[in-house]
Amino acid sequence: MSDDGRGRPRLAPSRRPGKTAREEILDAAAELFTNRGYAATSTRAVAAAVGMRQASLYHHFSTKDDILDALLAGTIDEPLRFAEELLSDPGPAPQRLHTLTFGDARQLSTSRWNLGALYLLPELRVERFEEFRARRERLRDAYRRLAGLVIAEWDGPPDAAELPFRLVESVINRRSDDGECSPEAPWVIADGALRCVGFQGDLAALRRGTTARLRIGDDNVTV
Amino acid sequence: MSDDGRGRPRLAPSRRPGKTAREEILDAAAELFTNRGYAATSTRAVAAAVGMRQASLYHHFSTKDDILDALLAGTIDEPLRFAEELLSDPGPAPQRLHTLTFGDARQLSTSRWNLGALYLLPELRVERFEEFRARRERLRDAYRRLAGLVIAEWDGPPDAAELPFRLVESVINRRSDDGECSPEAPWVIADGALRCVGFQGDLAALRRGTTARLRIGDDNVTV
Repeated sequence: MSDDGRGRPRLAPSRRPGKTAREEILDAAAELFTNRGYAATSTRAVAAAVGMRQASLYHHFSTKDDILDALLAGTIDEPLRFAEELLSDPGPAPQRLHTLTFGDARQLSTSRWNLGALYLLPELRVERFEEFRARRERLRDAYRRLAGLVIAEWDGPPDAAELPFRLVESVINRRSDDGECSPEAPWVIADGALRCVGFQGDLAALRRGTTARLRIGDDNVTV
Repeated sequence: MSDDGRGRPRLAPSRRPGKTAREEILDAAAELFTNRGYAATSTRAVAAAVGMRQASLYHHFSTKDDILDALLAGTIDEPLRFAEELLSDPGPAPQRLHTLTFGDARQLSTSRWNLGALYLLPELRVERFEEFRARRERLRDAYRRLAGLVIAEWDGPPDAAELPFRLVESVINRRSDDGECSPEAPWVIADGALRCVGFQGDLAALRRGTTARLRIGDDNVTV
């Protein structure tokens, strides 16, 4: 992989997206893990899908678990950063919760592979993935805290703080069932998350706020 | 298995629930599929977990896919029957949707193994599981139709009809994340499903109606 100076040259040119061999490996693994299954995919199959010798793949990832961990981190790092930014933001809580749910639902619905389907793997319950699970738990907690603020403001149902996070995750199930998720779905989910926690204000205004915050329509969308 | 007259005697006595060898096989497979993974579990391992020879297991199920199909059918048959009963019921739509979401969420949260986690398996996309997928789609459609009635009645958001089904499924994710789902969660989910589709009436009255319909507290609960 001349692109990053490690490993041997590839057996065949690849058409996968990614500027580096590492990114191409991750893309091939994501495709195989989501379409064939994690246990059913060998690192040999991943290497073959990139057009690379297995020995070369090991220059980048020592084990299949390391590949999975890198893929999972890629699904959580930016959502968690953005959730914690919104949590410390001084603005109205309903707007922040709306922007967070829309942004994450959109990311889950437009990502190249439906990696969230891997969250339910029993393989993730081992210590190797503890850091990933802890980060996902932090994201879930950020949702609960934002939702709790809206519930307090609107006298909503105290136990509903868990629901917005779960509505966002439903994008994963829809992609698994239908092969895709409509572009409208993230908006419907964001509005639904607000209704769930008792918000009865102006949802159209929240959509405008989310559009502005995420600069939708600009080239420079942050989520 | 003297209990149903087929197969050889077991290697070891089993403490699994189930009156028949078939039920014990299903219980062992459910445990292994959800805790170890479907691809990672062999029929040999299932037989060993029941204390049975592999040849005896084949008297009951020809393939591992047949075991999975039987388990999946067990998660959908009764919910589908009940959903279609409620769909043809003459009562108010909000009450019917509340009862359906609560009943299914409770079933998903109290079942012995978290079998819904298998719904996302890529292995299910093959023709072998087409009937299961079709029945699950019918259940999803019953939710959408009931939700559509509530949306029409309450002038709710037209696109939100998908959300109640997805909120019910979130029980699966909660069990996967936390190892359990609180007894209160099915009520919170049922209320949240109604809020999502625009219902602004008396949720406490719906809870009473659901309690009466499912005869909660009786020995003879139907869902």
